[in-house]
Amino acid sequence: MTDIWNNSPHLSKRLDRVETLLAEILSDPGFPLAEPTKRLVLSGGKMLRPAFVIIGSGFGPKGKGPSREDSIHHIAAAVELIHTASLVHDDIIDDAAIRRGISTLHTDFGVTNAILAGDWLFSQSFRLVADYADLKSTRILARFVGSICSAEIGQDMGKFRFSTSKRSYLRTIAGKTAALFSLSLHVGASEAKADPFVTQALRRAGYDIGMAFQIIDDILDYESDDKTLRKPVGNDIKEGLCTLPLILALKKDESSLRPLLRKPMDDRRVSEIVRLVISAGALDEARRTAQRFTARARVEIERLPPCPAKQELMAAADALLQRRY
Amino acid sequence: MTDIWNNSPHLSKRLDRVETLLAEILSDPGFPLAEPTKRLVLSGGKMLRPAFVIIGSGFGPKGKGPSREDSIHHIAAAVELIHTASLVHDDIIDDAAIRRGISTLHTDFGVTNAILAGDWLFSQSFRLVADYADLKSTRILARFVGSICSAEIGQDMGKFRFSTSKRSYLRTIAGKTAALFSLSLHVGASEAKADPFVTQALRRAGYDIGMAFQIIDDILDYESDDKTLRKPVGNDIKEGLCTLPLILALKKDESSLRPLLRKPMDDRRVSEIVRLVISAGALDEARRTAQRFTARARVEIERLPPCPAKQELMAAADALLQRRY
Repeated sequence: MTDIWNNSPHLSKRLDRVETLLAEILSDPGFPLAEPTKRLVLSGGKMLRPAFVIIGSGFGPKGKGPSREDSIHHIAAAVELIHTASLVHDDIIDDAAIRRGISTLHTDFGVTNAILAGDWLFSQSFRLVADYADLKSTRILARFVGSICSAEIGQDMGKFRFSTSKRSYLRTIAGKTAALFSLSLHVGASEAKADPFVTQALRRAGYDIGMAFQIIDDILDYESDDKTLRKPVGNDIKEGLCTLPLILALKKDESSLRPLLRKPMDDRRVSEIVRLVISAGALDEARRTAQRFTARARVEIERLPPCPAKQELMAAADALLQRRY
Repeated sequence: MTDIWNNSPHLSKRLDRVETLLAEILSDPGFPLAEPTKRLVLSGGKMLRPAFVIIGSGFGPKGKGPSREDSIHHIAAAVELIHTASLVHDDIIDDAAIRRGISTLHTDFGVTNAILAGDWLFSQSFRLVADYADLKSTRILARFVGSICSAEIGQDMGKFRFSTSKRSYLRTIAGKTAALFSLSLHVGASEAKADPFVTQALRRAGYDIGMAFQIIDDILDYESDDKTLRKPVGNDIKEGLCTLPLILALKKDESSLRPLLRKPMDDRRVSEIVRLVISAGALDEARRTAQRFTARARVEIERLPPCPAKQELMAAADALLQRRY
């Protein structure tokens, strides 16, 4: 797991518990690809979404029994499975060879099996949600998967158009990333019977943290080398994606950039585009947008009643903004 | 819709209602591929699974209000969406060009979008289930999707091995077909608060009807021309699938058939295999296996309390055994 939760030993311990649960849930002798799929799920993702479910549940009234805690852990596992399921299908779509430092399922087992492995993860997550969440959370999560799909298709249809619409970019990352961050906090709080005012504030904070997180992710695609991000630099450009740094650079220097944005996208052209985006100062500007989302999240969090979860959430919002990988 | 329900005007009318609901549910301006996906769902499938949900609900105590009927229709729609979602992903896996007489989603919109369209259908079905079914049905249906995936992967991994294991064939069709038939009757009855004894009997009958249905489907792959089945003859062989007719023919005449079973499978070889399977009498023998499953279903159905749904179910079991397309 990532070191982002190092300062929260209590949370780290609970995330370890979620990982143990995930290992149990995915050890299914009836499913032929259970082992490699499990390896991917446990291959050191940041476990952000499960962490947010647990943090959200920390805003409930005190004195909830251990059985409630067990449900929260199962729902946290379900949310991580929804996330991983969408990664498996994404990797097929993007024909990505590497995910979290290991080879992707469709690379090792073919597109066919990877599609079904993703479906299986979705089904396992729904089973968990149906078995452990209350009806309201079940409904919220069921609706959510539809909205990720819409965002993903919208993104896919925009590929290689390199639209400069910031609005459409923000809508896409809201659907594909911020929604699940938001729901994770929301569902955790709702399951723990937190005050509805708190639950709503968490929902908004989660959305803002998720937006900042994805913008940073998109910035890192221009900055990282293969070692730190564990995926190649300029990957988004190669796939025809126009994320915030490129949108901002296009607004400043369309005449140099636009002629480079065409298929097929070879490595030399990708490097040239990365160079132009950096020299336009677009990364700093994109980072300022991310900072504004984090600042909005902080305002929401500050209003919440004092509790350890509040500090954890504030620390997470800052750490995700500062991260370099 | 198919003419299989022509003798049940009441059921036909309710299935029309389910189709109207499906059209409403899938008219989602937020989802870029909603229209073509809706066209596929409404392109004249047999609506068997929704019919079985409705028939199952007919075994509940009398006097349930119209709101209950509305839930049943929504659950019936959800079951059809699960079925169609798995067809969309199957067609990608098999690279099938045609489904129900229209071109498949991945042919028109690419693999990427078809994967997401399938995911979206799954998510819509889960949303419906979560919104309309009771917790027990929700759990049953959530579990089921995992079991289809397992059966599909098992089938895929066996491709071009042409194993003569009847047991493994039956296990595959149980997972990919009979399970959803069984669940449809079960969930319908359970939602309508039918007696648990009845619900269990329906579950077994649905399983047997589903087994017979899939065996007939596999026989028709050797018999139909493109016009009646709306998919090409010998399609299963081309995909490397060893269904019951081929298994039975291999048991009788392995020496002529085995040398033909290899990649790449060209059209001439497919025709030769089809000819050998037919001349071995394997289609009649396979049909006798289907008849045995239908006979088992009839025994279960005969024990059920008399009601219009009982007659509908008996008629459906017979019609699905006799069908020629």
